[in-house]
Amino acid sequence: MHKKLFIPGPIEVKEDVLAKMAMPMIGHRSKEASELQRRISEKLRKVFYTKEEILLSTTSGSGLMEGAIRSCTVKRAAVFSIGAFGKRWYEMGINNNVPADLFEVEWGKAVDFNEVDKVLATGKYDLICITHNETSTGVMNPVEELGEVIRKYPEVVWCLDAVSSMAGTKIEVDKLGVDICITSSQKALALPPGMAVCSFSQKAIERAKNVKFRGYYLDLLALYEYIQKKDYQYPSTPSLSHMFAMDYQLDKILEEGLDNRYKRHIEMAEYVRAWGKEHFELFADERYLSNTLTNIKNTRGISVAELNKELGKRGFQISNGYGKLKEQTFRIAHMGECTLDDVKELLVNIDEILNF
Amino acid sequence: MHKKLFIPGPIEVKEDVLAKMAMPMIGHRSKEASELQRRISEKLRKVFYTKEEILLSTTSGSGLMEGAIRSCTVKRAAVFSIGAFGKRWYEMGINNNVPADLFEVEWGKAVDFNEVDKVLATGKYDLICITHNETSTGVMNPVEELGEVIRKYPEVVWCLDAVSSMAGTKIEVDKLGVDICITSSQKALALPPGMAVCSFSQKAIERAKNVKFRGYYLDLLALYEYIQKKDYQYPSTPSLSHMFAMDYQLDKILEEGLDNRYKRHIEMAEYVRAWGKEHFELFADERYLSNTLTNIKNTRGISVAELNKELGKRGFQISNGYGKLKEQTFRIAHMGECTLDDVKELLVNIDEILNF
Repeated sequence: MHKKLFIPGPIEVKEDVLAKMAMPMIGHRSKEASELQRRISEKLRKVFYTKEEILLSTTSGSGLMEGAIRSCTVKRAAVFSIGAFGKRWYEMGINNNVPADLFEVEWGKAVDFNEVDKVLATGKYDLICITHNETSTGVMNPVEELGEVIRKYPEVVWCLDAVSSMAGTKIEVDKLGVDICITSSQKALALPPGMAVCSFSQKAIERAKNVKFRGYYLDLLALYEYIQKKDYQYPSTPSLSHMFAMDYQLDKILEEGLDNRYKRHIEMAEYVRAWGKEHFELFADERYLSNTLTNIKNTRGISVAELNKELGKRGFQISNGYGKLKEQTFRIAHMGECTLDDVKELLVNIDEILNF
Repeated sequence: MHKKLFIPGPIEVKEDVLAKMAMPMIGHRSKEASELQRRISEKLRKVFYTKEEILLSTTSGSGLMEGAIRSCTVKRAAVFSIGAFGKRWYEMGINNNVPADLFEVEWGKAVDFNEVDKVLATGKYDLICITHNETSTGVMNPVEELGEVIRKYPEVVWCLDAVSSMAGTKIEVDKLGVDICITSSQKALALPPGMAVCSFSQKAIERAKNVKFRGYYLDLLALYEYIQKKDYQYPSTPSLSHMFAMDYQLDKILEEGLDNRYKRHIEMAEYVRAWGKEHFELFADERYLSNTLTNIKNTRGISVAELNKELGKRGFQISNGYGKLKEQTFRIAHMGECTLDDVKELLVNIDEILNF
């Protein structure tokens, strides 16, 4: 039996979108392939609110995160982590011999923008990495406030991990001043995993030109230059199946309307939060709750594994707490094509299992 | 109109295999996902004739090629290039600050194993990269002879790019002594592009432990260790769609029987070579012709672009010469699920267009 996924990726993909994954192959050096990537890029520019170039990568979001910190750091990277995925970004830097420092907050909290200000004011850093939406904690960082701070430092390239938020909440990339905004297919874009995309600003392009060892496959400048040289093609063979599905799904997203989409996500989030507060507590700082995922503190000491097993029998799946939060929290993702009715159906089933 | 692809990847994928790309999502941290990757690995071990571990990567073949040279070179890499893809391997090394030397032969020739012997005898190198099947030239290197030479140097980790040959011709990885044998989905495995796989020997594992900066996403040791730690799971979110299709297609390959599959490839290759020699000349050294692709010298000075355009109207596509060989050669791939009848149909159409 298929389980309806309420985990923070992979998430449910609609049948008509899945069907596009099964389209017959085309040559990746054909005019058709160029047109396909150009169309995708144009649509993603709308979703990202950017005029900058869009890069596609046949990797998970991690591939582009690594590409960003490695391709665009000359002096030193400041990585602000609010959970597991922020810390991963730091490891990517260290593993690539990129000078980097890690600034952590307690899990459940957002980034302190005064701290960001203080760190950048040292002048030691020319790149900053921030997770927008941290699925390990359920916190969504306040990007507007962060933007105000970071824009004071024109030397700093801003990399934003919007893997689990882009297309589920409004992120106005150009207005905020984000240089490299990264997302991947299997979250709020509601596609199967296997492709990541990012915006790539002129500032980031110029910076990358000064970085000597950017590698090959994850070199963002190489991806950019290939688009220019070969008219929206990819340096190696991309996952065309994902591109067919993305091209189609982006039409559906724009048809729904971005504002409607964000509103739907907020409605789902509010419903889950209210339920969570009624029966448990929320894990994250209430000022910075995620719109795409809710992390619920297991104040009743239930067995989350057992709950998920029972849910599985009914055709649903949620997520246990991440890493050290296993059994201490459980997470319900509400993103992509998920609707308020889907969320209600899930919660009714949890109510039944837990005798609420 | 769909064009039947006779290009060296992407190639034709059967409808029932494409349908598997459209399967609904599962959690990538589930028992199901572990079982899926374990099944794929077991089947690939048969195709690779290896007892070593199999790594999956959500990238094109280039991703694993970069991972191999970067993860496993301590002293210096010797890259033997016989065309465009061999040279790419050298660039990957250089771009990652991996000490490397490039040894090239004239396009159309195979690697000279006496030269390999001489180079390795210097004791300067602890890793060697060789392209098995070079699609830019149509040469298939003699791996048996190369194996005899390379096995004399137990310190040397052997990386073999079998991207366009694995599953189309017999490559007995363990017997040959290949440490990292790489292929990708969109060639003779007859799957859509988007996933690469490799074998990873104990020698390569031990070597990688001594390499400091292996990066993150393309770090072969990290992929290996995650399999051990998390029971055949992937460090980030893999392309599950490709895994569903690969699991299914590998059953079909093993059902056909590997020897039958190789025989079918030889029959197609011999038919195309005979046709090529009748009307043109073959580009590659006749002792080392590829079984999966034939590169034909344009001795008649036809317009290859025009030929391909006419073929396109009839629902077929071949490849122009690669890079500097554009219009000087044309390439017909005959791999994957392609049959002798498919090849005959293509050539009859070329005959008609060129009035043969």
